[in-house]
Amino acid sequence: MSNRIILLAHGSSDKRWCETFEHLATPTLNAVSDSRIAYMELAEPSLDDIVAEGVAAGVSRFTIVPLFLAAGRHLRKDVPAMIKALEESHQVHIHLAPPIGENPQLGEAIKDVVVHQLAASDQ
Amino acid sequence: MSNRIILLAHGSSDKRWCETFEHLATPTLNAVSDSRIAYMELAEPSLDDIVAEGVAAGVSRFTIVPLFLAAGRHLRKDVPAMIKALEESHQVHIHLAPPIGENPQLGEAIKDVVVHQLAASDQ
Repeated sequence: MSNRIILLAHGSSDKRWCETFEHLATPTLNAVSDSRIAYMELAEPSLDDIVAEGVAAGVSRFTIVPLFLAAGRHLRKDVPAMIKALEESHQVHIHLAPPIGENPQLGEAIKDVVVHQLAASDQ
Repeated sequence: MSNRIILLAHGSSDKRWCETFEHLATPTLNAVSDSRIAYMELAEPSLDDIVAEGVAAGVSRFTIVPLFLAAGRHLRKDVPAMIKALEESHQVHIHLAPPIGENPQLGEAIKDVVVHQLAASDQ
């Protein structure tokens, strides 16, 4: 119950980029109580902001769900290092889930999008 | 009928990264006849390889579906420039579709993944 879900996006100085991620996150934020979106860099709120906000509300366990299609350097090195520092500074436990793109449901959703685009362009 | 779908991923020198994209693409490649995956950089097959292969098979129209969650510099500048060069060199028409993450179905799929992860972690 006290495990707060954080959807982590990379972040960008381009507002349109962040807006796309906010739209992507909206169904999850609506469905999962107390879930949040945070950015790794270049946009607000930062992961640190969101963990600090949770700690202030009494949350001690977090699960980070990366809004990334695959794991590259950021998810293999940078984010684990950020998590370690946050766990030490806030005395919390943070679990890093696999990137959403590693879930087979995403591949099915992509297929549905492409099939619908094809259907639309055939009209 | 002669409009070939190309799923375009960024590419990486990390094989595991490319494998994730190949898994993501598999349902689409199975569902949409003659569709292909291509990489923007750092991995094979390149977009140029895949367009050249299509041209050799008599295809003159392509639709690129970016396996990106949002449009940043790559999709706003680099890929349109690549497309322009390919259209000129191969005398073909290439349509750039929006990145898959701009489709609301992706947000729903992400919600389903997170809700399932939560359900699994509660067990």
